[in-house]
Amino acid sequence: MAVNYKLPVAAELHPVPGVTLGYAEAHVKKPNRKDMLIIALEPGSRAAGVFTQNRFCAAPVTLCRGYLEYTTEVRALVINTGCANAGTGEQGMNDARATTKAVADALGCKVQQVLPFSTGVILEHLPMERILTGIPQCVANLKTNGWFDAAHAIMTTDTVPKAISKQIVIHGRTVTITGISKGAGMIQPNMATMLGFIATDAVVGPEVLKDMVREAADVSFNSITIDGDTSTNDSFILIATNKAGHPQINGEGTAEYGQLQLAVNEVAIALAQAIVRDGEGATKFITVKVEGGKTREECMKVAKAIGHSPLVKTAFFASDPNLGRILAAIGYAGIANLDPNKIKLYLGDVLVAEHGGRAASYREEDGVRIMKEAEILVHVDLGRGKEKVTLWTCDFSYDYVKINADYRS
Amino acid sequence: MAVNYKLPVAAELHPVPGVTLGYAEAHVKKPNRKDMLIIALEPGSRAAGVFTQNRFCAAPVTLCRGYLEYTTEVRALVINTGCANAGTGEQGMNDARATTKAVADALGCKVQQVLPFSTGVILEHLPMERILTGIPQCVANLKTNGWFDAAHAIMTTDTVPKAISKQIVIHGRTVTITGISKGAGMIQPNMATMLGFIATDAVVGPEVLKDMVREAADVSFNSITIDGDTSTNDSFILIATNKAGHPQINGEGTAEYGQLQLAVNEVAIALAQAIVRDGEGATKFITVKVEGGKTREECMKVAKAIGHSPLVKTAFFASDPNLGRILAAIGYAGIANLDPNKIKLYLGDVLVAEHGGRAASYREEDGVRIMKEAEILVHVDLGRGKEKVTLWTCDFSYDYVKINADYRS
Repeated sequence: MAVNYKLPVAAELHPVPGVTLGYAEAHVKKPNRKDMLIIALEPGSRAAGVFTQNRFCAAPVTLCRGYLEYTTEVRALVINTGCANAGTGEQGMNDARATTKAVADALGCKVQQVLPFSTGVILEHLPMERILTGIPQCVANLKTNGWFDAAHAIMTTDTVPKAISKQIVIHGRTVTITGISKGAGMIQPNMATMLGFIATDAVVGPEVLKDMVREAADVSFNSITIDGDTSTNDSFILIATNKAGHPQINGEGTAEYGQLQLAVNEVAIALAQAIVRDGEGATKFITVKVEGGKTREECMKVAKAIGHSPLVKTAFFASDPNLGRILAAIGYAGIANLDPNKIKLYLGDVLVAEHGGRAASYREEDGVRIMKEAEILVHVDLGRGKEKVTLWTCDFSYDYVKINADYRS
Repeated sequence: MAVNYKLPVAAELHPVPGVTLGYAEAHVKKPNRKDMLIIALEPGSRAAGVFTQNRFCAAPVTLCRGYLEYTTEVRALVINTGCANAGTGEQGMNDARATTKAVADALGCKVQQVLPFSTGVILEHLPMERILTGIPQCVANLKTNGWFDAAHAIMTTDTVPKAISKQIVIHGRTVTITGISKGAGMIQPNMATMLGFIATDAVVGPEVLKDMVREAADVSFNSITIDGDTSTNDSFILIATNKAGHPQINGEGTAEYGQLQLAVNEVAIALAQAIVRDGEGATKFITVKVEGGKTREECMKVAKAIGHSPLVKTAFFASDPNLGRILAAIGYAGIANLDPNKIKLYLGDVLVAEHGGRAASYREEDGVRIMKEAEILVHVDLGRGKEKVTLWTCDFSYDYVKINADYRS
């Protein structure tokens, strides 16, 4: 069950001029489910991406990185679920290449203008016959209002489709930003088995797109964690079709740049939070806000220590204000010279701990009340600087174990 | 249920000349259970310790460190379960001091010769009235053959008592090494809510004892992990009563030194492994051997990435040879310039992956066969150096969540 997730409504997912989407039921792993997707882009579109830092990255990730070195003038994205094509050696590279070649042939573009993405079980080869059968199905299905189906087509252990859309006005022109994501387990900062695709018809330069995707990733997909594992396949792509008709946005500092970045960030954050809300077995949505750090990096270390701790996560599941576990996690986050006496810990707006111990004003019933809520704020003030970060995570339930123990069966 | 753990037999726990042990049922948290222990040492005994690296360390840990700066001539250890006396600020320090004072008064030694230890819930104050009532009970119970009861008295969520004893001969004299430990959850390298106490009647210099406890900790308690959390209270103490009557062991390099260190290491490893075998909800005992690293540190990073991954741990629970999760964990361990193509991954003696993908010889049924065993070896060759480490860990089950969600209720 997703935590307080507002299901996307198909009609509210605005088409992005220049983008069509088509899915297939290719039976990559299981029959009768949408498991392939092509996102086709009109000529003149550009894309930029951020990818997993995992050294064991999947073949499609290696290929995407290489293709994007060659050109940002992307014409299509092809995505399959059911098989991650990771840990598949040279054959995996050949399979990914063959997939992009088939899409390029079908759409009449260059191989390097097709970006491949895979998600699913690792160490198994792509069933190429099925993939190649799925491609013409996807192409035949291409349509401008395919975002809702697209959100379904990229799901793995996700229980709900994840999609969001918003519109802004730049120089009198309506600009659309629409995106989809998939995630569930294996999510942590620095990307996880998480795919995110956002498209806009805004008119931007290629360098702008690269900067924008990086900032959006930092405040969204790199600020969520479910179980601390980072995957071999994580990819986040920002597409601009340049169809909106306003003057090109060229660099930071202009109002239009800021406006577009903010809107892209909002969509990315909503997509990233949707992944946490649908975290494998999640029953609570936890916001970890760490402030008062000397650097953003040390704030993130503390936030991750809290967000990754199985003991903290099981306490949230149990609605147990076992706040000592949070303090313990702060203590082992690896911050040099951290003074426990300067730390303040709040649950929601309740001061829980200060001066190295329980706050005199803290009453257990206040902690219990907040821990019972479906959305919980953990707020830490390190009391040693001015930097801050926000991390979103979820609790750790029986179902997390069940889903991950059963995943391949 | 402990994984293949051989329960200690009271009669096989050799008394250590110079050591007596006495427990109490002090009702620190729950009635009718052994929850306090005093280990009394005859004059002339020495102790050295290794403690948690957590910045939020508990009051007794702070006190122990300070007392051991003052003297290694320790006369008693006092341990309570039920309350960790961590995150308790200045009052926590006062309570720990008052505890050691009461023990010192009862035994007729200096306050600083009494080392305090607490384990249990964090952020709650010690119930001092009960603690102070428990101390004379412990003292009245002191006896040389109290090791078996002592192992019971320090249990928290442990399901079995952990104790082991061995004897060696040095210069014709029988030397005894007997130890107890407690752990369960929250265990990772660099110490966790884990207590370990080993005593020997060997005759050693104080500096020798400090070196020996450090090496023993590295190869034992710092080489296990259950859930990646390190606690506020972890402590490992090595005691020498100097009663064995052989010439004093003064420095590294002698045969006697090596012989004693080896025996202490063996006892420490058995006690540490017992903690993993009794890991909260553990159903499998996993040995992670990482070799071929440039440094021990990078080998340990890889071993920990595998040992901490909830996805890997749930796959072990499910007996699912989802080896891709292990490769993914190796990939995100943070090793610079790691070449996935040089890595070899074995399950038991079965080569699973090489050249960046599944080994040609690997058959799924071999993986399934090994994953079904209660003791599993994961063996990684990084193919870039000569260093190696071994880490012991366990799987991650429904019961882990249950135990940790219910801990305080």
